[in-house]
Amino acid sequence: MDRLKVYILGATGLVGQRYVQLLARHPWFEIAGMAASERSAGKTLLQAGWILEEPPPPEIAEMGIEKLDVDRVPRVDFIFSALPSEVAARVEPQLAARGHTVLSNASNMRLDPDVPLVVPEINPEDLKLLERQRAERGWSGGVVKKPNCTTTILNLSLKPILDEWGIERIHVVTMQALSGAGYRGVPSVAIIDNAIPYIKGEEEKVVLETRRVLKADFEIYVTTTRVPVLDGHLEAVYVDTKKDFDVSAVVSALSRFKGLPQELKLPSAPERPIEVRSEIDRPQPRLDRWAGRGMAVVVGRVRKLAPRKLAFVVLGHNTVRGAAGNSILAAELMVKMK
Amino acid sequence: MDRLKVYILGATGLVGQRYVQLLARHPWFEIAGMAASERSAGKTLLQAGWILEEPPPPEIAEMGIEKLDVDRVPRVDFIFSALPSEVAARVEPQLAARGHTVLSNASNMRLDPDVPLVVPEINPEDLKLLERQRAERGWSGGVVKKPNCTTTILNLSLKPILDEWGIERIHVVTMQALSGAGYRGVPSVAIIDNAIPYIKGEEEKVVLETRRVLKADFEIYVTTTRVPVLDGHLEAVYVDTKKDFDVSAVVSALSRFKGLPQELKLPSAPERPIEVRSEIDRPQPRLDRWAGRGMAVVVGRVRKLAPRKLAFVVLGHNTVRGAAGNSILAAELMVKMK
Amino acid sequence: MDRLKVYILGATGLVGQRYVQLLARHPWFEIAGMAASERSAGKTLLQAGWILEEPPPPEIAEMGIEKLDVDRVPRVDFIFSALPSEVAARVEPQLAARGHTVLSNASNMRLDPDVPLVVPEINPEDLKLLERQRAERGWSGGVVKKPNCTTTILNLSLKPILDEWGIERIHVVTMQALSGAGYRGVPSVAIIDNAIPYIKGEEEKVVLETRRVLKADFEIYVTTTRVPVLDGHLEAVYVDTKKDFDVSAVVSALSRFKGLPQELKLPSAPERPIEVRSEIDRPQPRLDRWAGRGMAVVVGRVRKLAPRKLAFVVLGHNTVRGAAGNSILAAELMVKMK
Amino acid sequence: MDRLKVYILGATGLVGQRYVQLLARHPWFEIAGMAASERSAGKTLLQAGWILEEPPPPEIAEMGIEKLDVDRVPRVDFIFSALPSEVAARVEPQLAARGHTVLSNASNMRLDPDVPLVVPEINPEDLKLLERQRAERGWSGGVVKKPNCTTTILNLSLKPILDEWGIERIHVVTMQALSGAGYRGVPSVAIIDNAIPYIKGEEEKVVLETRRVLKADFEIYVTTTRVPVLDGHLEAVYVDTKKDFDVSAVVSALSRFKGLPQELKLPSAPERPIEVRSEIDRPQPRLDRWAGRGMAVVVGRVRKLAPRKLAFVVLGHNTVRGAAGNSILAAELMVKMK
Repeated sequence: MDRLKVYILGATGLVGQRYVQLLARHPWFEIAGMAASERSAGKTLLQAGWILEEPPPPEIAEMGIEKLDVDRVPRVDFIFSALPSEVAARVEPQLAARGHTVLSNASNMRLDPDVPLVVPEINPEDLKLLERQRAERGWSGGVVKKPNCTTTILNLSLKPILDEWGIERIHVVTMQALSGAGYRGVPSVAIIDNAIPYIKGEEEKVVLETRRVLKADFEIYVTTTRVPVLDGHLEAVYVDTKKDFDVSAVVSALSRFKGLPQELKLPSAPERPIEVRSEIDRPQPRLDRWAGRGMAVVVGRVRKLAPRKLAFVVLGHNTVRGAAGNSILAAELMVKMK
Repeated sequence: MDRLKVYILGATGLVGQRYVQLLARHPWFEIAGMAASERSAGKTLLQAGWILEEPPPPEIAEMGIEKLDVDRVPRVDFIFSALPSEVAARVEPQLAARGHTVLSNASNMRLDPDVPLVVPEINPEDLKLLERQRAERGWSGGVVKKPNCTTTILNLSLKPILDEWGIERIHVVTMQALSGAGYRGVPSVAIIDNAIPYIKGEEEKVVLETRRVLKADFEIYVTTTRVPVLDGHLEAVYVDTKKDFDVSAVVSALSRFKGLPQELKLPSAPERPIEVRSEIDRPQPRLDRWAGRGMAVVVGRVRKLAPRKLAFVVLGHNTVRGAAGNSILAAELMVKMK
Repeated sequence: MDRLKVYILGATGLVGQRYVQLLARHPWFEIAGMAASERSAGKTLLQAGWILEEPPPPEIAEMGIEKLDVDRVPRVDFIFSALPSEVAARVEPQLAARGHTVLSNASNMRLDPDVPLVVPEINPEDLKLLERQRAERGWSGGVVKKPNCTTTILNLSLKPILDEWGIERIHVVTMQALSGAGYRGVPSVAIIDNAIPYIKGEEEKVVLETRRVLKADFEIYVTTTRVPVLDGHLEAVYVDTKKDFDVSAVVSALSRFKGLPQELKLPSAPERPIEVRSEIDRPQPRLDRWAGRGMAVVVGRVRKLAPRKLAFVVLGHNTVRGAAGNSILAAELMVKMK
Repeated sequence: MDRLKVYILGATGLVGQRYVQLLARHPWFEIAGMAASERSAGKTLLQAGWILEEPPPPEIAEMGIEKLDVDRVPRVDFIFSALPSEVAARVEPQLAARGHTVLSNASNMRLDPDVPLVVPEINPEDLKLLERQRAERGWSGGVVKKPNCTTTILNLSLKPILDEWGIERIHVVTMQALSGAGYRGVPSVAIIDNAIPYIKGEEEKVVLETRRVLKADFEIYVTTTRVPVLDGHLEAVYVDTKKDFDVSAVVSALSRFKGLPQELKLPSAPERPIEVRSEIDRPQPRLDRWAGRGMAVVVGRVRKLAPRKLAFVVLGHNTVRGAAGNSILAAELMVKMK
């Protein structure tokens, strides 16, 4: 097939550059252009400052960044938005009204009942909410959201457990990577030889978005912290299940878990969305964040602490599975579901 | 009064040097000597390699380190032991049999019913077990233990809550400092840009030692992790209380908490064993580990998540309150209780 | 004597807070007030966000921060300025014209021939330039500058060598701490597991300011880099001397070096401005930055590589000796020289 | 052609695993086996503890590690040795005497005149020393060495300058990565928030090995330091050239530089052995260490400070180009030169 055209909003930030990196070599999609704030407009990606490890291929590196103007965004198949939430809240509805399909990382609209909040392996059916969204809002385009990164990673690990044993409550403590706060988010003098036990707005998002994605209303207790790790959110999880379980059955259910993206063999779908490691000291952010090319979550330390009391640790790449990669996977799903 | 003589075992390690640092300027105690393994014997502390920030005063820095020989340890008032557990298990009973009083950080004997496992603000009365220990073992000296560092810090924060509201169960996730593993414990290439979700033996210790120190049998679920922080263990705690609570009453109970060391105005006793911070992003290891000269624990993010569901974060300096400082405080208590 | 009143400009930044920390317990000076940008005005220091390890005493912590207004700065004995250079360039001359004596860290005016650029142990006599400054500019007050932090540390180590053996040229490579760039200067995702071989404007400053402070015109080649260290600039130095030297004589000259602040026993003067360490692997930023309460520089690895070719490494605390502390020492000197 | 068989000594260390990683997907070579110390013998690589980011393919990961026994090393085309020097000094000559061709990272024998010390782009002709080595030592096999990592990276950047303008002297200061010291080399508590201005034996190696590799006797002044970076040695270099130069000509000479491996299109040869970056703040270890798949060195900040005074910064991946990769490239060269 002809490659589908995509456009990237907010291309110069950490998540924006992750979009560029993943899309630059995508088998179905082709970057038709990108926009960012006034400060970067007119520059190339390299001039604006490439901050990831692998530089983009020359034809992308030299592409000019446009100033974001909703009336001049070209007709493309998908727009990927890495805009800050306050900008996104204004811009994304305008784009949808103009007929664009926007897949967005921004937190606005995530809880609107007519907006898909999708982790493709978990709730692909929610993409159908787009029809209702268009009808209710009178849009010819639409907006698709992904949950916040911590939620996406957590929910993937919970889904097989919820399905098979049911969940009464969870207690979660996260150790989150610095890239989750954006390039200028955490000053180095604030975090070296340190940890910060608070991330603004994060705990509320995990509670509300988890309920929406998993369509469940179990109790959720969560404490989110920041640690000196570049990429990869680590989450220590306690699950009170409804039915009792064997640890080996849980490990098996996690390892076997597959969703629609795997069935459809979507290009960004990891072969196994959940990798379970048996080494006692894994997963570790630096060693495991690139599992499944950053699209798998890695679970370890699965143990039974008491009847119906499960504990484990889960890790995911926060700007790949937790952000750009998840939206690209959703777009791939939309291509196949059309 | 004349200064009491003390002797330090394992003086060259991270905890041993912390002992030296705290005792070198102690108003009651005077370092009469120190011993370490063969490798350091005959050297001065500086020659063996001082690794803490503040060098010891010259008369201590130039003191010769002796080779540990139980028959040549001088008569002193207290021996502080920072020996590795496998050495301690052999040496400490021999010293006690020879009439020495040993305050030890090593994990052996911590669960023996005739061995005091003491956090001076929590269970000073357990020092009386020494009499039973001497009687049962036929020792003229004795061994006093402190809980592991994570437990000490956790238990201080739990004590006022246990006393006033009762505890049904706790879920804990720790983010522990590198110094807890000793100088060579965690290679730099293993932990920079990383976190490790496992610490050998630690979780079992927290469960068993907490029950012994707090004389309580609530459910304890704990996950211990290592993060790239030099000093200061951070612990995220969920407490299911027996009686319902007001957050402000909990904050007040924590802030007001005092123990026997405070009543007796012991020199190493922090004015307030628990400092509660109201800033949303505290405690942080680097900023708060020296609260109360490293002897206070700092609690923050106290919040009520549901009826009888309390959450908070607690931090303590693992090699001061969690190790050397706690044993010195216990020795001070023993002086006053004689 | 009555304590002299001082006022702090830019009190909320890293250097501003260092001023607060050092002045809060100063024997001669008393903080009469402090100002910062609009964002912090009206808050207390704690509310604006205290970011150093040791919190200030309560009476300072609760002091209200004023909005900077040159016409409302109170009459005090000294104003210490930690303003950003672009603000300083506008504000400091206005204050001097209004009769205030300003000791400033900002880089503006550092090369003006009528402005003292002072390291008190090296060129205290340059404080006399204030008279010429007042005469030429028609000011009743005046502005005193300190060199940039890298230069101050380097020049202290060079002064005894210059005096005794003469210097033909130096090659320097620095490894500079993050705090030198200010609180938001270096994002954590830019520097963890990394080093950056460029600091804007720094190399030019070292060349020009060294010549001015040392009143010498030897060749200076310098490369400045940023490394993941919180505080403490490390500088590897090669010196081609004019006369040949013995290493032991160099060590002795460095160790013996004293200046006017030591003669006058000024309260912030370290007993020895240069400490020489004989251990092969020192100085190290974390272990040595607090030498002489942050006011000494520490030299190590002194070696002779060839005739008239000296090499060593020097370290200094960049926000104490390299910034706030140096200006406070200069103010102390002005008190005594009046 | 049939794939050539190779065998890895010391396969479990950081350099050993880098060999495994690079050889596991090598187009010409096939791992026939690997040996390590007694502690790892009998385990698989995974059981012994894989510590690099990318795990090896399953057939390699599950390969059993043998106990090193010179009489049982199988007949292969090349043995790659990542043994510690003290073991290598004993084992490697025994292997060569038994007819094996050993390419080794260990520092023993590097200065022996009949032992090739090879950077394939610089002195491929020195491989011919093997004949003399065999004749003189009566070996049927042979030993080929590479310079230490710092030297290899430095010398690649110096070679085009030496050839075109001549070199009178260099002043170098290195900022070296932690992996250069091996897995347990630098404890985390020694280096976080710190730098260490000394690396045992390193400066002497740079001086002596540079002279041997470049066949030149210019003056070399070098200070080696350790910084908290995982991989990638950064070196700040001043070069006094014999003839004067234009910066643009230097940049061009560096960028154009190619050697025999590029002519022969060897599989591990980077297209350009030296990449020159024009951004003012590059090279940076984390962003640039994988240039040319870790086999290129990256030069930046090329500037002329005075007539015949050149300055630049060079970076290379210390365990790829600086160790395993360089030896593999040498083996490829030997295949083609046979």
